[in-house]
Amino acid sequence: MPRLVMKFGGTSVADLACIRNAAQKVKREVENGFEVVVIVSAMSGKTNELVGWVNETAPMFDAREYDAVVSSGENVTAGLMALSLQGMGVPARSWQGWQVPLKTTSAHGAARITEIPCDNLDAKFAEGMKVAVVAGFQGLAADGRITTLGRGGSDTTAVAFAAALKADRCDIYTDVDGVFTTDPRITDKARKLDRISYEEMLELASLGAKVLQTRSVELAMRFNVRLRVLSSFEDARENSGTLVCPEEEIMENNVVSGVAYSRDEAKMTLVSVADRPGIAAAIFSPLAAAGVNVDMIVQNISEEGRTDMTFSCPTNQVALASKALDAARDSGEINFHDLIADKDVCKVSVVGIGMRSHAGVAAQMFEALAAEGVNIKVITTSEIKVSVLVDRKYMELAVQALHDTFNLENAA
Amino acid sequence: MPRLVMKFGGTSVADLACIRNAAQKVKREVENGFEVVVIVSAMSGKTNELVGWVNETAPMFDAREYDAVVSSGENVTAGLMALSLQGMGVPARSWQGWQVPLKTTSAHGAARITEIPCDNLDAKFAEGMKVAVVAGFQGLAADGRITTLGRGGSDTTAVAFAAALKADRCDIYTDVDGVFTTDPRITDKARKLDRISYEEMLELASLGAKVLQTRSVELAMRFNVRLRVLSSFEDARENSGTLVCPEEEIMENNVVSGVAYSRDEAKMTLVSVADRPGIAAAIFSPLAAAGVNVDMIVQNISEEGRTDMTFSCPTNQVALASKALDAARDSGEINFHDLIADKDVCKVSVVGIGMRSHAGVAAQMFEALAAEGVNIKVITTSEIKVSVLVDRKYMELAVQALHDTFNLENAA
Repeated sequence: MPRLVMKFGGTSVADLACIRNAAQKVKREVENGFEVVVIVSAMSGKTNELVGWVNETAPMFDAREYDAVVSSGENVTAGLMALSLQGMGVPARSWQGWQVPLKTTSAHGAARITEIPCDNLDAKFAEGMKVAVVAGFQGLAADGRITTLGRGGSDTTAVAFAAALKADRCDIYTDVDGVFTTDPRITDKARKLDRISYEEMLELASLGAKVLQTRSVELAMRFNVRLRVLSSFEDARENSGTLVCPEEEIMENNVVSGVAYSRDEAKMTLVSVADRPGIAAAIFSPLAAAGVNVDMIVQNISEEGRTDMTFSCPTNQVALASKALDAARDSGEINFHDLIADKDVCKVSVVGIGMRSHAGVAAQMFEALAAEGVNIKVITTSEIKVSVLVDRKYMELAVQALHDTFNLENAA
Repeated sequence: MPRLVMKFGGTSVADLACIRNAAQKVKREVENGFEVVVIVSAMSGKTNELVGWVNETAPMFDAREYDAVVSSGENVTAGLMALSLQGMGVPARSWQGWQVPLKTTSAHGAARITEIPCDNLDAKFAEGMKVAVVAGFQGLAADGRITTLGRGGSDTTAVAFAAALKADRCDIYTDVDGVFTTDPRITDKARKLDRISYEEMLELASLGAKVLQTRSVELAMRFNVRLRVLSSFEDARENSGTLVCPEEEIMENNVVSGVAYSRDEAKMTLVSVADRPGIAAAIFSPLAAAGVNVDMIVQNISEEGRTDMTFSCPTNQVALASKALDAARDSGEINFHDLIADKDVCKVSVVGIGMRSHAGVAAQMFEALAAEGVNIKVITTSEIKVSVLVDRKYMELAVQALHDTFNLENAA
């Protein structure tokens, strides 16, 4: 029998009425002939409440106990969802992570899935179970303790089950209609994409489009899981949501598929660094050791043996980065005249798999920004992406200009 | 190393401050040289919230899902308690029922404990763990699903661990100072008992003194577990609380140890029943089948082949009982002229192991009630208990009169 994985996030199971609504969608897929694995998050707000209690009890907490506490929210939703389905006449039962078992590493709080043996689920499907409701976000370490996969881990749980069960598709139900060419709150010209490639989705996810966890997209790409993002508050139709799929399944790739942005970026410049072999390593090793997520890096042309080094990182890591760099200067590892932090910047990016075979995307992007008087501070590029740092006050303007110049409103 | 079981109920772990307070008490026992197993309930209100969600989702619920949902409250407290202890420098970890494992029957919602293999706990104690915080109320069925032991099951969990671990004592921390000669809200002459026998405690528990679950006392008696009831809001002293122990450990038994009452009793009288062999079975079998908890039964002297049959049951089962009896009459199984339900009665009882060797307790009880003008409606006795039904308006008066006549205020 064909199998389907359906995942419902926190807002999709916010209360008993939402759980019932989600159960209706599951029932419909059972009627369509699927055996279904449903992955559920905690009812919205519950995980935050539990995390708050843990932090208040023990600011330097034992991650194993954190996981034991925080995983309980998903167990509640799983049981209630199974009950809701049973009430609709659908043979369903709940599964906690350890019952499946969903095996993980022992990296508590950020565990990685190692294996999902499907014998237990298969046996129950063979006995007539139509729906297995699995508590998302949680797993079992080799020593028998409960682990969690990190925030948003339920997406990853869903994709992992789809891969393990060889499911036809993995549907991620959320509170938006799918993946858009850009954030509809910034321009009403934003258009829902029917399809997007894994590679593009990965760039968009890591650029701050919060529809899917980056990890879950990586996993889907690796195991070729067809991933659909759709709204739990709309009735599903043929072309509902956005299908995240291999590039080959997208007939004609757009040069640019979407415009992403990230608000909380800071630009940091080390002024007049001695330019010598190994200087980049000397700067970025202490930052990495301090846990700073360095994103873009630019080195200016060197003059008289000195250069300026600029990088970006999340705004809330500026203090951390400054401390690490000052310490490196004090210990003589590096030498610079000044460290300038600009917290009033943002990152705007265009993403599209068609860029690979299409020249001039960066130039068109820069022209569009220039036409609006937006000054570009830093540029980086990848094979399918061009990102720029600009002053934060221009963020909406830049997104709108780029959306227009690449005609995303009307693209096929 | 000597071992101790400590159990904290819902009000003792109501919030983070209470959990911290409870953890302090655990720490003190570790400092006293004990390896400790702590049994925790859900934070107060949590289990009711979960039960409410289950009932709203599925009024005719699958008890397996009920258990999966409802058990989650204890898991949260267990993790938070372990964290709180760790924060105080005490090596502690949490255990969910399935991790121990605490094995039970598969009677979901009212499972009975079958076995607690202690290998896992022993191994961790040997590695230096000082406190195992175990989620109460829950267990694991043979098929790998979560069970719960029924309301108040955490007391039973605690006693079962004390028996399995051969603990020196099982301390039940609650919101009262111990077991009293009667309810202190009814008379301020009520006195805390330092010791009470299992048999007396069983009678008091089943008579409505809500300090301990009847099941846990039965279990303690069977396995000779020394059980102490004490307040989690007082500092423990040498003679804190009440020790529930074998009769032999109580030097001089009081004739009467306590006066108990039960407010929600109803008296039902079947008027003019045909008095024939088998009539009692014909009346009480349908009541049992309907799930009515019949307590006292009195049959009047028979006149002309007919008799009156009186029994008591909880007030909220009167309708159920009436329906069952009317159905039995309609089907011709029994025959009676009238069914009179008196919902304005209560049960008052005196309990004492010394009664066994001391005549005249019942007579003294009846005299004391008569002196206050309290009319007795039904009487039953056991080896260590005399119970009467009286009009509810006399309840406090009756309790006070009996407390006085047996001099419980001053008894040793």
